[in-house]
Amino acid sequence: MPRYRLTVAYDGTDFCGWQRQCPPDGPELRTVQLAVMEAVQHVVREPVEVLGASRTDSGVHARGQVAAFTCEAERDPERMRRAIDSRLPDDVRVVSAELTRETFDPIADATSKGYSYTLAYATADGTPRPLFDRRYVARTAYRLDPAHMHHAAQALIGEHDFASFAALHHGRKSTVRTIFDCGVRPVGPHRLRIDVSGNGFLYNMVRIIAGTLIEVGRGKIAPADMPDILTAADRTSAGPTAPPEGLCLEWIDYR
Amino acid sequence: MPRYRLTVAYDGTDFCGWQRQCPPDGPELRTVQLAVMEAVQHVVREPVEVLGASRTDSGVHARGQVAAFTCEAERDPERMRRAIDSRLPDDVRVVSAELTRETFDPIADATSKGYSYTLAYATADGTPRPLFDRRYVARTAYRLDPAHMHHAAQALIGEHDFASFAALHHGRKSTVRTIFDCGVRPVGPHRLRIDVSGNGFLYNMVRIIAGTLIEVGRGKIAPADMPDILTAADRTSAGPTAPPEGLCLEWIDYR
Repeated sequence: MPRYRLTVAYDGTDFCGWQRQCPPDGPELRTVQLAVMEAVQHVVREPVEVLGASRTDSGVHARGQVAAFTCEAERDPERMRRAIDSRLPDDVRVVSAELTRETFDPIADATSKGYSYTLAYATADGTPRPLFDRRYVARTAYRLDPAHMHHAAQALIGEHDFASFAALHHGRKSTVRTIFDCGVRPVGPHRLRIDVSGNGFLYNMVRIIAGTLIEVGRGKIAPADMPDILTAADRTSAGPTAPPEGLCLEWIDYR
Repeated sequence: MPRYRLTVAYDGTDFCGWQRQCPPDGPELRTVQLAVMEAVQHVVREPVEVLGASRTDSGVHARGQVAAFTCEAERDPERMRRAIDSRLPDDVRVVSAELTRETFDPIADATSKGYSYTLAYATADGTPRPLFDRRYVARTAYRLDPAHMHHAAQALIGEHDFASFAALHHGRKSTVRTIFDCGVRPVGPHRLRIDVSGNGFLYNMVRIIAGTLIEVGRGKIAPADMPDILTAADRTSAGPTAPPEGLCLEWIDYR
């Protein structure tokens, strides 16, 4: 049977994350997976399961989430994309669609992922609140030094045990991951962007990296402390988990 | 008494426009003027009237609305700005504040205003829905030719009777206005932006200009017809009123 691969973008503000959630004592929550599944089922007129590559949290955005489903009908992928897209709510879009092999697994076959984290911060000139992009930018009232943060971020690059940067109950046997690149750069006044790519990420890992780099930016953690934080393999050695709204899943690469 | 001039930016999506509205049979509506007035009164602890330069409609945005108020207390304008700004909801900001002369009238003293109108349109590649900026971009399912629209826009420049481009019941004695500049340019794929500046605008005038230029862009009105539409001095000769979400009051200049 044909299998389709979709690239999905969404504003996560009003979603309870990607993955379907059916509380035993109430109605199913509003999730991206449910929205996409309902749109696909409406188009192909058969029950389908839509599997996403990354279970983004509540409030987290995506420009390049990858999802896949198998159905009986074989259609032109661009026509399929348009039909699904037209059935989706305002805050989700199917950006592209293609036919893929029957065994394509968006989770297991992924070789690398890229995330961005955008943050509004204070300077001597004040702490302007984000306005037009406020749904996509986290805020801190601290004054930050982005160059300092960029320096500290370099210690994360490479293969490390990221146990210090995983939420408790992350549910993974191994906490070893490889970070390919991690950088911090100013993007306009009072605004910085963290870009991080790697072969995989533990639960909350990018938000804990962001929270730790914020501690560096305000002078609470020295860049030279980063190797020790990794070595500790202890969640309490890293900084707090930064809020979800600054985070965006930018892209996923496959072999 | 000291008079303060504020530059105010807002996302108009969830506001019933700038101007206060108190229906006789219900609670006062959510307007930008009310939000700013309440924040100012909280800071200065006295009743004030906040006068805005432009009565933007429901759903219309502003980067450079100008407002003024007079109060007894004289404070450092930047401290005043921060205090007011911290009392405002997420979708309004006071961008700057300064002390001005006691007779400053944000409406009568304005010499020119600039508006932008941003539109997502169809091409042979489809009609992508705006996602992350969907609150600030109007949509049309028509294919448009921005170069054609730009050509037509040039006919609006200069002093003209803009009666064809005013909503009925506009309430102004004269419909003669001067447009200083009007241009249409592509901004990314499937996205165009109309910029228009002038010495004053009639009710709905920029949205009717946008709606007329859309008709030009899809080939329903020829650029050569624009002078006749002006000469007709009749609302029905121009195109429809484009929706509010694409419109943004960018700046106001004073003598």
